[in-house]
Amino acid sequence: MAFLLNGDSATATLLLQMLLVFAAAKLFAEVSEFLGQPAVVGELLAGVLIGPSVLNWVQPNDLLTVFSELGVLFLLFQVGLELKDFKLMRVGWDALAIASIGVLVPFVLGRQIMLALGHPQLEAAFVGAAMVATSVGITAKVLADLGLLNHRASKLILAAAIIDDVLGLIVLAVVSSLAKGPVNYIELSLTALLAVAFTVLVAQFGTRTFEKLVPHIDRAMKSSKSQFILSIVLLFGLSILASRAGVAAIIGAFLAGMALASSINGETKTQTAGVTEFLVPFFLAGIGLHMDLSVFARPQTMWICGAILVAAIVSKLIGCGLGAARLGLRNAIRVGVGMIPRGEVGMVVAQIGLNMGVIPKDVYAIVVFMSIATTMVAPSLLKLAYRDLLPEK
Amino acid sequence: MAFLLNGDSATATLLLQMLLVFAAAKLFAEVSEFLGQPAVVGELLAGVLIGPSVLNWVQPNDLLTVFSELGVLFLLFQVGLELKDFKLMRVGWDALAIASIGVLVPFVLGRQIMLALGHPQLEAAFVGAAMVATSVGITAKVLADLGLLNHRASKLILAAAIIDDVLGLIVLAVVSSLAKGPVNYIELSLTALLAVAFTVLVAQFGTRTFEKLVPHIDRAMKSSKSQFILSIVLLFGLSILASRAGVAAIIGAFLAGMALASSINGETKTQTAGVTEFLVPFFLAGIGLHMDLSVFARPQTMWICGAILVAAIVSKLIGCGLGAARLGLRNAIRVGVGMIPRGEVGMVVAQIGLNMGVIPKDVYAIVVFMSIATTMVAPSLLKLAYRDLLPEK
Repeated sequence: MAFLLNGDSATATLLLQMLLVFAAAKLFAEVSEFLGQPAVVGELLAGVLIGPSVLNWVQPNDLLTVFSELGVLFLLFQVGLELKDFKLMRVGWDALAIASIGVLVPFVLGRQIMLALGHPQLEAAFVGAAMVATSVGITAKVLADLGLLNHRASKLILAAAIIDDVLGLIVLAVVSSLAKGPVNYIELSLTALLAVAFTVLVAQFGTRTFEKLVPHIDRAMKSSKSQFILSIVLLFGLSILASRAGVAAIIGAFLAGMALASSINGETKTQTAGVTEFLVPFFLAGIGLHMDLSVFARPQTMWICGAILVAAIVSKLIGCGLGAARLGLRNAIRVGVGMIPRGEVGMVVAQIGLNMGVIPKDVYAIVVFMSIATTMVAPSLLKLAYRDLLPEK
Repeated sequence: MAFLLNGDSATATLLLQMLLVFAAAKLFAEVSEFLGQPAVVGELLAGVLIGPSVLNWVQPNDLLTVFSELGVLFLLFQVGLELKDFKLMRVGWDALAIASIGVLVPFVLGRQIMLALGHPQLEAAFVGAAMVATSVGITAKVLADLGLLNHRASKLILAAAIIDDVLGLIVLAVVSSLAKGPVNYIELSLTALLAVAFTVLVAQFGTRTFEKLVPHIDRAMKSSKSQFILSIVLLFGLSILASRAGVAAIIGAFLAGMALASSINGETKTQTAGVTEFLVPFFLAGIGLHMDLSVFARPQTMWICGAILVAAIVSKLIGCGLGAARLGLRNAIRVGVGMIPRGEVGMVVAQIGLNMGVIPKDVYAIVVFMSIATTMVAPSLLKLAYRDLLPEK
């Protein structure tokens, strides 16, 4: 009807989209848990189902992308908040071993497969780079849902994922530079150095700083929500700084959570958990929305998809597992499985390759498939790997 | 640097905008409270300051609008949640008197002023229609901040604002139809009927329904966040239905909060309060962002602005005050002041008039100024009107 407030009909469409994504994600999370699977699997599948590949009720768009990006930021922030006595530097060497071997093996394997299939050098290198990226959000969400975030292997996964992110960014930078001409190794080293310095500084001094600062801020501010306001400002501030320093914004969000973990009160944590709970379905279902099942139309692509998917799973399992070998087989498997999901990070790498004209559309679709499929497989494997620590039914 | 993740640089810009709006709003809220003024005034002023009129650090855009709209939805939802023992129907007649006289007086006065200044009929009618609209969000936020949401006059304001919204929509519909040709009174009556039926039904049966339903849902759902999920789904669901039924989406959000007020637990309320606290600054500062101080460049416009602003304040104060006369002078003043802000509703009406080509750009700027200025004046007046109920300093 033309005489309704015109602003409202656009709002109604937007609200309907958001309701669809949120409700579908939560409904499938329920079904997934009912079937003994992690809730995360259901939320990812909900995105595939309502997305363009199946029902086509919702298409990925800018707005949903924003909610998805905010969702993963709040997710990592909340994970940081809920960690108890986590010293990034103390697990540093183990995490470095896990991340390094876990970057090397997938890159080499992915590249070799594409070369063996007759794809050009640069294309193969890009696929390798996309297979390097770990999406720590998914693993963190599963572990948080299971109440296992503070287990030794879980903390190692989080630490390794941070290092993995820096290494992955370097690999991507080298590969992208190769596509454009000679690589500027000085600029590259400076960026890497800045990224590492930022992470180490915040991880090392953040917690102590806020343990001292927060009581002062509480006293100085009139608002009863001063700790909540501080949380939001620090979450956004460190996310922006991280992204300026050359690390992913989610690392900044995670560090912000870590820095505040021991200084803010329970009510504030419940409030930020509310925002997280509201936004995370957009991140999870949002990944599912990007699934393009039409890649399976050509049998040949299907085989490559399968090979790349298996390589992506096995290479992280072996690479990260090797890095974690000295923790015993069981923990090595947990770490290996936890690093499998490529999620949004793999998708971003594929997007860059496509935009640069380095990878063609079908290879792009394969990488996106690999990113989403690894993300869907990992949660159930993770639950299996941690099954002896879960309460009996 | 070109080799950073390209997705990230867009994210960083967005995050920076959000951080600026949020931090500026909260900083000015602090300053405002320090000066003995309501926090809301500071958040509105923060928007004016960082907006195009002064510093031009942030411009209104689609994304900020979405956050602003979600902000006012969550705000009204939270207000509904925090009301104790609120029966819309019990205060119905008083509220109807307040809303009706409070719609009539501003419309007539606004229209007469514009006609007296030589503006055409339709233009004058549109300005009158924009002066009818009450933005209940601002008043509700001020009363919530002061802890006075459950006072008798406050509940009357909320009830009257709901009826005001329906009446305002009818006025706007008639005025818009006039601009396009003959008014279809049958269609108009049907819409009004639907709007009233929706509101009455949800207000009357919502609370009891969920008091019965929520324990069942709690038992049936595996997720520990089942009440939070229900809250979000109901908030979005009723907002959409309200907007389809011809009422503003915020009325649906308010009714959703009312329906759940007595059935969900404290933890869930703290979680939704977190989302509200995160989003509301985008609503408040967002209104300020639209302030266009260049209207004052021409002295003549300045005088019209002043006249319209005074008329907008006095007409609601007298109209709504008259409607609430039988509650005594003090409460009549509280109600009158509480209905002064036009906020986003007046701005939407102006936008419609501009889009239809019924009002020219300078009249549009005047209406927007009136909407924002009434919104900025009201909180301090409201604090004054309720001052005998506030705790001594």
